[in-house]
Amino acid sequence: MNFILKNENALFYECGYSCDNALFLKLEDEAFFITDARYSFEASEMIKNAKVVLAQDLFASARELLEKMGIDRVCFDPKDFSYFEFKELSKSANIVFEERLDFSKNKRIIKNSKELQLLQKAVNFGKECFDEFAKFISCEGHGKSEKELHFKACEIFQKKGALRLSFSPIVAINENAAKAHALPSEKKLEFGDLLLVDAGVVYQRYCSDRTRTACFDESGIVFDKNKPNFKDKEIIQIYEVVKQAQLQAIEKARVGMMANELDFIAREVIKNAGFEKEFIHSLGHGVGLDIHELPNISPRSDYELKEGMVFTIEPGIYIQDKLGIRIEDMVYLDKEKAVVL
Amino acid sequence: MNFILKNENALFYECGYSCDNALFLKLEDEAFFITDARYSFEASEMIKNAKVVLAQDLFASARELLEKMGIDRVCFDPKDFSYFEFKELSKSANIVFEERLDFSKNKRIIKNSKELQLLQKAVNFGKECFDEFAKFISCEGHGKSEKELHFKACEIFQKKGALRLSFSPIVAINENAAKAHALPSEKKLEFGDLLLVDAGVVYQRYCSDRTRTACFDESGIVFDKNKPNFKDKEIIQIYEVVKQAQLQAIEKARVGMMANELDFIAREVIKNAGFEKEFIHSLGHGVGLDIHELPNISPRSDYELKEGMVFTIEPGIYIQDKLGIRIEDMVYLDKEKAVVL
Repeated sequence: MNFILKNENALFYECGYSCDNALFLKLEDEAFFITDARYSFEASEMIKNAKVVLAQDLFASARELLEKMGIDRVCFDPKDFSYFEFKELSKSANIVFEERLDFSKNKRIIKNSKELQLLQKAVNFGKECFDEFAKFISCEGHGKSEKELHFKACEIFQKKGALRLSFSPIVAINENAAKAHALPSEKKLEFGDLLLVDAGVVYQRYCSDRTRTACFDESGIVFDKNKPNFKDKEIIQIYEVVKQAQLQAIEKARVGMMANELDFIAREVIKNAGFEKEFIHSLGHGVGLDIHELPNISPRSDYELKEGMVFTIEPGIYIQDKLGIRIEDMVYLDKEKAVVL
Repeated sequence: MNFILKNENALFYECGYSCDNALFLKLEDEAFFITDARYSFEASEMIKNAKVVLAQDLFASARELLEKMGIDRVCFDPKDFSYFEFKELSKSANIVFEERLDFSKNKRIIKNSKELQLLQKAVNFGKECFDEFAKFISCEGHGKSEKELHFKACEIFQKKGALRLSFSPIVAINENAAKAHALPSEKKLEFGDLLLVDAGVVYQRYCSDRTRTACFDESGIVFDKNKPNFKDKEIIQIYEVVKQAQLQAIEKARVGMMANELDFIAREVIKNAGFEKEFIHSLGHGVGLDIHELPNISPRSDYELKEGMVFTIEPGIYIQDKLGIRIEDMVYLDKEKAVVL
């Protein structure tokens, strides 16, 4: 099947290299990587299985290639190209551009063993960083603002440049944790506060993703989901609901189940505890080269769960002006069950 | 004029807030910010001049709004929406979606005095970071790899989280500087090496951008474009050509000139010295909320230079397997001439 890609991770998946101005075309038995002169040295060095083509106008170059080879049908992902770029491409008369939504993400939905190894390593590094961050907070966190803690998290999760961040970490105190995508503020960490940390790393281009919510007190903080250390009865109760929702989903995930069924399992636990409206997002999402991949684990997802998929399970309860609690782990689905990475 | 926007900086420019899942619509006298529940608290707090609308499906919500208000024509930027999103939008029968390429960037091409102040501050912070980075390299740079230097640059240019990076800094030694967009490698900095650093910061969402190329030796390094400190005659000569190209462009930039004329002025200096083919990119680009804004200063640019524009002037010469030299500053065009920020 002929196809054309633009997204960097899609490009990397095909040929082991990417840059921010390039197109990849698979046309019959040949592959082409079209980029501009700035990337010529690197592209030629790194790409073995595709011909590197240099061009000022990538789209004109792609059209030329398609026409020269007499191609009449090419798949593309309508999310991967802007409307402008699509129009540039489709200036080629006589070529049918066939829409394939999430083309590359669907190709990448089942992870092979090498990818699993890299994802496990990314998760392991992520865990180490959580532990290091907990140590820092325990020693020096008192009185530090979310902004300061956020910056320190960025520093720790990059391990002196050996890793990249899979996204800007979320570091949120008490009511700020109710904002599912909170930006760090000047709010300072005090003893007795709830702290939510959602962070991940990129190791050899593969992402990790994890969230812990715990109580910071005179003895410090631990990011262990079984030792959140809360004292407030109501918070303990809500935390237990989120934890049970996650546990149920992890234990019941099976090959052949629909993704929306898995979302339903966790959502029911939260609903039965009276917090249905406070669980305002999906249960999870695939993770790989992108931090958000397929399958999405949501009430509307029509993906079937299959062996080799890797995704997050991250239920949460958010009470405006008060608190947010989320627990998130990445799991790998094997023949029998979900395995927490 | 009715319009719809999606790009975060375009959204911020209109209403002082943005998030990664939102649409902004200006429809007759009303403005709407459509986002999902995750951002409801922040959006409602921060946005004063638009109505916040919460929706799971932003595009369905936009269509509903357009239809309810009986709008028949809306402008959009075909680069701002994926082909998929455009199709979602244009499910609305009876509404003409009018293409306006670079709609928001064209709106933002002339900077007002408040924006100029923020850009000047961003540039000042950027300069401070260059000085701090030079100090670090002078004391501890010898034997450090590009990766280590790159990580340190990231740390310094973020000033403990007070700033963000306007892009991932380029820190390239000798022949690696020939790759105009080099990724940091394991190559170690030795005495006598050429070092190219291209970096900038974001201050209150406005970007800075600057490049210096200089020689690192036993006495350290200084990022002063007039004291590059090279010893090799050929390098001194090439550096002079780049410096003259930049100087000529800065001195001759005028209101009313075409952007491609300005590119030509610098390109001629480099061509006359015999390096035409080694200047492989445009002379410059606008800078503002985005690191790459309008006008583009290139051989093909048809923008006219106007008072209040802010752009880079950054000629370079790149000799494969040997070296790359680039000098870059941001300028503001006032009534009379270009002023280096």
